[in-house]
Amino acid sequence: MSDIYALPDSGLLAFLLFDWLDIGHQDERETWLAMIDMAQRLAADAFLPHYREADITEPRLETDGVHILPAIQTALNLYREMGLFGANFSEEQGGLGLPFAVSLAMQSNFAAANVSTSAYPKLTAANARLILAFGTPAQIEQFAQPEIEGRWFGTMCLSEPQAGSSLADVRTRAILDGEDALGARYRLTGNKMWISGGDQDASDNIVHLVLAKVARSDGSLPEGSKGISLFIVPKILPDGSRNDIAVAGINHKMGFRGTSNCLLNFGESDGAIGWRVGAERDGLVQMFMMMNEARIDVGMGAAALAYRGYRLSLRYAQERSQGRAIGVRGGEPLPILTHPDVRRMVLQQKAYAEGALALCIYCGHLVDRADEEAEALLALLTPIAKSWPSEFGVMANDIAIQVHGGYGYTRDFAVEQLWRDNRLNPIHEGTTGIQAIDLLGRKLLFSDGGSLALLRERIAATTARASAFAEWDGLGTILLTFWDRIEAVIAALRTRGGAEAFDDATLFLRAFGHGVVAWLWLDQAMSALALADPQPRIGTVYACRFFFETELPQALGWLSIVAAHSDLVRNTPERAFA
Amino acid sequence: MSDIYALPDSGLLAFLLFDWLDIGHQDERETWLAMIDMAQRLAADAFLPHYREADITEPRLETDGVHILPAIQTALNLYREMGLFGANFSEEQGGLGLPFAVSLAMQSNFAAANVSTSAYPKLTAANARLILAFGTPAQIEQFAQPEIEGRWFGTMCLSEPQAGSSLADVRTRAILDGEDALGARYRLTGNKMWISGGDQDASDNIVHLVLAKVARSDGSLPEGSKGISLFIVPKILPDGSRNDIAVAGINHKMGFRGTSNCLLNFGESDGAIGWRVGAERDGLVQMFMMMNEARIDVGMGAAALAYRGYRLSLRYAQERSQGRAIGVRGGEPLPILTHPDVRRMVLQQKAYAEGALALCIYCGHLVDRADEEAEALLALLTPIAKSWPSEFGVMANDIAIQVHGGYGYTRDFAVEQLWRDNRLNPIHEGTTGIQAIDLLGRKLLFSDGGSLALLRERIAATTARASAFAEWDGLGTILLTFWDRIEAVIAALRTRGGAEAFDDATLFLRAFGHGVVAWLWLDQAMSALALADPQPRIGTVYACRFFFETELPQALGWLSIVAAHSDLVRNTPERAFA
Repeated sequence: MSDIYALPDSGLLAFLLFDWLDIGHQDERETWLAMIDMAQRLAADAFLPHYREADITEPRLETDGVHILPAIQTALNLYREMGLFGANFSEEQGGLGLPFAVSLAMQSNFAAANVSTSAYPKLTAANARLILAFGTPAQIEQFAQPEIEGRWFGTMCLSEPQAGSSLADVRTRAILDGEDALGARYRLTGNKMWISGGDQDASDNIVHLVLAKVARSDGSLPEGSKGISLFIVPKILPDGSRNDIAVAGINHKMGFRGTSNCLLNFGESDGAIGWRVGAERDGLVQMFMMMNEARIDVGMGAAALAYRGYRLSLRYAQERSQGRAIGVRGGEPLPILTHPDVRRMVLQQKAYAEGALALCIYCGHLVDRADEEAEALLALLTPIAKSWPSEFGVMANDIAIQVHGGYGYTRDFAVEQLWRDNRLNPIHEGTTGIQAIDLLGRKLLFSDGGSLALLRERIAATTARASAFAEWDGLGTILLTFWDRIEAVIAALRTRGGAEAFDDATLFLRAFGHGVVAWLWLDQAMSALALADPQPRIGTVYACRFFFETELPQALGWLSIVAAHSDLVRNTPERAFA
Repeated sequence: MSDIYALPDSGLLAFLLFDWLDIGHQDERETWLAMIDMAQRLAADAFLPHYREADITEPRLETDGVHILPAIQTALNLYREMGLFGANFSEEQGGLGLPFAVSLAMQSNFAAANVSTSAYPKLTAANARLILAFGTPAQIEQFAQPEIEGRWFGTMCLSEPQAGSSLADVRTRAILDGEDALGARYRLTGNKMWISGGDQDASDNIVHLVLAKVARSDGSLPEGSKGISLFIVPKILPDGSRNDIAVAGINHKMGFRGTSNCLLNFGESDGAIGWRVGAERDGLVQMFMMMNEARIDVGMGAAALAYRGYRLSLRYAQERSQGRAIGVRGGEPLPILTHPDVRRMVLQQKAYAEGALALCIYCGHLVDRADEEAEALLALLTPIAKSWPSEFGVMANDIAIQVHGGYGYTRDFAVEQLWRDNRLNPIHEGTTGIQAIDLLGRKLLFSDGGSLALLRERIAATTARASAFAEWDGLGTILLTFWDRIEAVIAALRTRGGAEAFDDATLFLRAFGHGVVAWLWLDQAMSALALADPQPRIGTVYACRFFFETELPQALGWLSIVAAHSDLVRNTPERAFA
């Protein structure tokens, strides 16, 4: 499969990082670009070739644990040899010291080539970052270091069979068992569900980060999410013995199959040994710091899958001839890209895929900036970076199938697998509905509005750029009007108050996301036009116009539904569903 | 799997057929209802149980042909024993004489239970109907009769590897070989792609209906779609010998796997023997008569899959407890159906699934009426009946997965397979894009507008019913305004003219479909409120309101995009995609 042309183009990535976001100095940029090129080659050589195979040959559970496709381990060995597990850890930490935004650009290649293989290092890096942030020096050396080196992999153990979105109901319990060089030591018992990479045979050890509640002296567990603490629970203990963790089952997914996904039982015998990270009851706060980056990673994965589908269907539409222009009879069939309906389907995918890619890299850059403004913007935009690429990425992949016609429905073409793989993204790491409540609640209605004001400043800066061009000033006005409308809806929801304000949160999230992506498209178009030669990036200009012409009007419709404050859904009686 | 509750409810079907569409007399209705109940039981007992198995154990090609899952044959044997292959053929033709609308209601159960098993009899009936319409008495007795009895199955061989949507480019050739009791006899050579049921081991013979061009004396083929003729090409010839048809390959699909799908080579040796049906060069016209019913069948299949996903996710949302109301802490978790976002997701599925079901049964009733008005309306609505359930059925199944969260992404639940199965429907029997061109071209811009005027009359009759209720009159006004807007857009497109008028045909189709479904929802709601006791059908009333509140405003957005007549997509240069 010579799909390398379908991986994120380094010209596009360089434009986003350097021309658009102005990251780094000239000499750094050359190094980073070389690394992005290297990532693309590695993705093409070692990740792409087993994309279909990893879908067919699922991870299997045997008596000695979970076995994954050997090609995954081979690919990750090469990845490790290039130091990529530590891509955006500092050099003192044993990493390559790349900015997060640059590492995301590299990641987009691995995720586009093989999203489920790329999940292992992403989970591992997120795990190590959390230990670095909150762990003791001994914990960092013992657990984070082998992860940064890529010898050990990491997992996040949050969900339980009865507690997915609602972590307050976590029942895994931890009982203090003493103290040693690695900190306060506990025995854990409980079941953890949906654990990606929960077991596999590709790394020497697995570092589980587990949310659990410390039992009171009477054996009861504290209630609610504030009672949750965080523990490091390795598969193999420092003395080389196996910890008390059993793989109780493996989930058979519709897609994303290369990433093993397990039900883990902690403490079937004496209790699994774990060391607490940070203070008791700080678990959820710590986890959410990490979750923010994990959510950008999910968004980037979704964007990358959408991008590959876009590129594959573009190529197909250029090469497949079928039919003639309307009103024309006879003559040779034309490439289907010349048919306006197909052309629109390809341009729509571009607007979604590259819009999502830009959104995630922008958020990655906010992570790197880490100043007060950047942190406020990042908090506001993270639910968008998670949900928008996920929702519209699946839609882009749906369109990629349609462009391929019947062929797209067969497993001879990659687009059907891209669609199935991408469908996980609106679910894991917080469903779209959860992101909507986060955006509308914590980030808007229950905040002082400061971060939204900052966002409006950034948007105003973009429209100021646009006002320099007569033909672009109109789009700037449309964008400002759209955001005025969003603010009016927020004000009305604030007045409405109560739980009812959240009834249409998901539709609000979707509209807000469209507003953010429209802004970023306009900003990118301005940067493209400012290039000495805009021609190589002329697609940015067309995709921007497409988004404003055909996507924003739909978002206005969603906003009008939110603004109507209907009680219909809430008041629909249960018998009406019967 | 005791999923019988997820199959179309006979109370709903009775409401649609009898209370809403007023089909049949009291005594007939009792018989039909008993048959619908019987169909539901058969679907639950013989079709549902192998739903997953047929997905896992795909049809396989061996040296003696294609083998399908034995459970499919067992189910179809029972189906045959009940005479259901001939459900809506007249009693003189050896059928049960059911109206098409009633047989569609029965079909909805089989399609919901197992869409790929139900495809065999649907294809067979469509095939037999075509032979009955255009064949000679000898052809009918020889080929259609065993199909009506369910002993032989039928296929439609239209597409070729290079000619899918564009049948004008068909290259299969037929050369006259004499004449016998079955009519003009030809030898056929060519490759036919995407042939559903193209080979299988469940029936004694397979009757292929093949589109081909009769070669001129110089060996050349006539150009364009007007040169196409139709042929009966059986797998086993009347003398018991094998015809010259080879299974060159089997397509490995993402879903809909129980239905074998083949590449057939006709005439690898001396040419496959076939008898012409009707006059030379009438092939496409004949095929399209049949395609109209086949397209309603596709829509019904899509509606049925959407309906099952709706019912499964409703049940899941009632039984799965997770989280609490916003602002509430502590206490037991609530069934997720109480969360407004989940409630909306379930109601949205109901609006799509039952809206699609009603649309298809309405069109089935137009087939039965067969008067001039009904035929005009049917021609106009067929592209909607094909495309709207397909597009929004897939969306409904997507939502069903989301309601299930992570569980919905696993193969332990049926919703992921429903989604995969349904994804075929916007592709086969004419893609959504093809339906859009048919609606906007042949049915609207290139017509005298008579059928649209008839549709407006029906809509006006519905709004007149609604005006009797103060609280419903408003919805009637909204509906009329929406249709005025559609007519204004059509008038503008007529003025625009040329191929450019079709640039946004797909978006126009989608909006037109929403307008049709909104009308049918309002009409159903009026019928529900007119019942002696509306309570059992109160869900119809809520779903109608939901559709008007949250779906129609979006359709207005789509119309505004069409009305803008943008040249952007058409004028986007190819280098902008690079």
